[in-house]
Amino acid sequence: MADDNRTPVTVIGLGAMGRALAGALLDNGHPTTVWNRSIDKAKRLAVRGATVANTVEEAIAASPVVVVCVLDYAVVREILGPLSGSLAGRTLVNLTNGTPKQARETAEWATGYGADYLDGGIMAVPVMIGRPEALILYSGSPGAFGLHERTLGALGTATYLNADAGHASLYDLALLAAMYGMFGGFYQAAAMVGSEKVPAAEFAPMVVSWLNAMTVALPTVAEAMDTGAGADDDSNLQMQAVSFANILSASREQGISTELLEPMQALLNRAIAAQRGGADTPSLIGMLRTDPVSAG
Amino acid sequence: MADDNRTPVTVIGLGAMGRALAGALLDNGHPTTVWNRSIDKAKRLAVRGATVANTVEEAIAASPVVVVCVLDYAVVREILGPLSGSLAGRTLVNLTNGTPKQARETAEWATGYGADYLDGGIMAVPVMIGRPEALILYSGSPGAFGLHERTLGALGTATYLNADAGHASLYDLALLAAMYGMFGGFYQAAAMVGSEKVPAAEFAPMVVSWLNAMTVALPTVAEAMDTGAGADDDSNLQMQAVSFANILSASREQGISTELLEPMQALLNRAIAAQRGGADTPSLIGMLRTDPVSAG
Ligand SMILES: NC(=O)c1ccc[n+]([C@@H]2O[C@H](COP(=O)([O-])OP(=O)(O)OC[C@H]3O[C@@H](n4cnc5c(N)ncnc54)[C@H](OP(=O)(O)O)[C@@H]3O)[C@@H](O)[C@H]2O)c1
Ligand SMILES: NC(=O)c1ccc[n+]([C@@H]2O[C@H](COP(=O)([O-])OP(=O)(O)OC[C@H]3O[C@@H](n4cnc5c(N)ncnc54)[C@H](OP(=O)(O)O)[C@@H]3O)[C@@H](O)[C@H]2O)c1
Repeated sequence: MADDNRTPVTVIGLGAMGRALAGALLDNGHPTTVWNRSIDKAKRLAVRGATVANTVEEAIAASPVVVVCVLDYAVVREILGPLSGSLAGRTLVNLTNGTPKQARETAEWATGYGADYLDGGIMAVPVMIGRPEALILYSGSPGAFGLHERTLGALGTATYLNADAGHASLYDLALLAAMYGMFGGFYQAAAMVGSEKVPAAEFAPMVVSWLNAMTVALPTVAEAMDTGAGADDDSNLQMQAVSFANILSASREQGISTELLEPMQALLNRAIAAQRGGADTPSLIGMLRTDPVSAG
Repeated sequence: MADDNRTPVTVIGLGAMGRALAGALLDNGHPTTVWNRSIDKAKRLAVRGATVANTVEEAIAASPVVVVCVLDYAVVREILGPLSGSLAGRTLVNLTNGTPKQARETAEWATGYGADYLDGGIMAVPVMIGRPEALILYSGSPGAFGLHERTLGALGTATYLNADAGHASLYDLALLAAMYGMFGGFYQAAAMVGSEKVPAAEFAPMVVSWLNAMTVALPTVAEAMDTGAGADDDSNLQMQAVSFANILSASREQGISTELLEPMQALLNRAIAAQRGGADTPSLIGMLRTDPVSAG
């Protein structure tokens, strides 16, 4: 039920994620107005109490807080661009995945039209939305975050980073990079044992507890990365390179592609060649730094 | 103190891992004989109660259980090959990292000389050895495992897989593949935020809790992989491909190499192209299956 004490919120974009966001707002009693290109998805939310706007203009006009969550920033600008004027005095919360550069440009554009702008990175899948496990990172207008923190809290654990609108995107994409690395490793592992008919589901609990044990090492590796102090971790890179080569040989023997493994092997070998014997795990990160591509 | 009720054990190879193994045996009261190519490392263990063998032959003769943990299988054969005859009636526990094929060949070789053979995969760093968190996977002779389970328990949690000597290696390498995927993702993530001067140590706890939250999804993905049922996980691959492209764009803009990310992007795009719209996360694993390389 809508609650008069709750800030009215508009949600634009009702894909899997937008629907979860609108649902959490409705569950928390926020008067919620929705709009989506394909109207059938909006209608499904009407049953739960949402007001379905007929036009984007109507959707924006309905609430002081406008959440947008669509496929990409090009779609954000396509939908909102013609209506920039109507954003004045409102807070635009953009939860669409994008780059820091896109976030900063969108912040400039929105504030240029008199809106407050918050950019967010959703570190959760839709089913987690509305629960404390759903971390949502925000950056941009500190005033808007302060004003709407409670409202944003309806979506998950709202964490404010800083005033640079690009930072939520940067953290979001960095965390996704970490996740895809982990997923890629899991696919490789499951394919390897699967080649001997071990069901992935039987193997998965072992992987999960192994990965959880190994994530414990990350803060120590991070510390060494920052200080350049060296790892002293009793796992020298030459030994690691031998094991790594074994992973590739075994994959080939078992009929599993080595495509996901090869760049890490190249990185390991480069670090060893560059540091002749003294190479350690933290030194690997430095090998990833290149010259920034002009953001022009 | 050596305990008369404990099985005498020989440890061959005293690198970072071999020293930890010998140390755990000594801590558990096993009469422990050690040998290493560079004798200084053996001497350090003598102080803790180990008997230092002058020759490999002497080392083997000292104990019914001979643990070997060196750089690779070539070294195992180099060290033990000339002394195959003296292995008869003993249990050879090979904890050296290698491929399933190498493990099976070594099992055949050792059993041909009248030894019982166990191959092991150490899922731990040296500092964890001797503690229950140190998982050590074994496969090979079931009789030898049954007989020496308690002794092997001194090294960590001893888990027996099956009689195929190659399986411990396969699981070991698969788990390492998962770990390196996770580490690679972490390096990428730390490099990305590091490009905006965020210290890795400040960022690491966020990555750890994010990865722990995401590993929870692996058993479900694994189930869907096995059944081919499709994920129905509200995170469609087209949307993921857009976010993934954002990770690459942002990395380039921030001066971070995209080398670790590219193969996963290619895999995602191939899955989408192959399945036209219906692609989901579990379908990715199938894309890694190639034709097995002849093990000849
Ligand atoms: N799902 C997740 O697990 C997850 C997790 C974290 C973050 N996110 C982020 O959330 C955002 C939305 O993801 P999602 O899972 O909701 O994706 P989705 O289910 O594929 O939905 C995409 C949304 O974008 C709209 N859209 C696409 N092209 C459009 C166009 N040209 N004009 C107007 N609308 C257009 C779609 O409208 P129609 O309904 O009309 O097609 C739909 O509302 C993405 O940035 C994603 O990275 C998703
Ligand atoms: N350290 C870890 O984190 C870890 C974790 C899991 C599994 N493992 C596995 O444990 C095994 C040993 O690793 P480690 O960390 O102990 O490596 P390490 O510290 O580099 O030690 C290598 C060992 O191999 C010996 N060796 C190398 N080449 C030799 C040769 N040609 N002849 C005779 N001996 C030779 C070395 O003898 P010298 O002392 O004379 O050089 C030393 O005993 C590897 O298979 C590794 O994959 C290690």
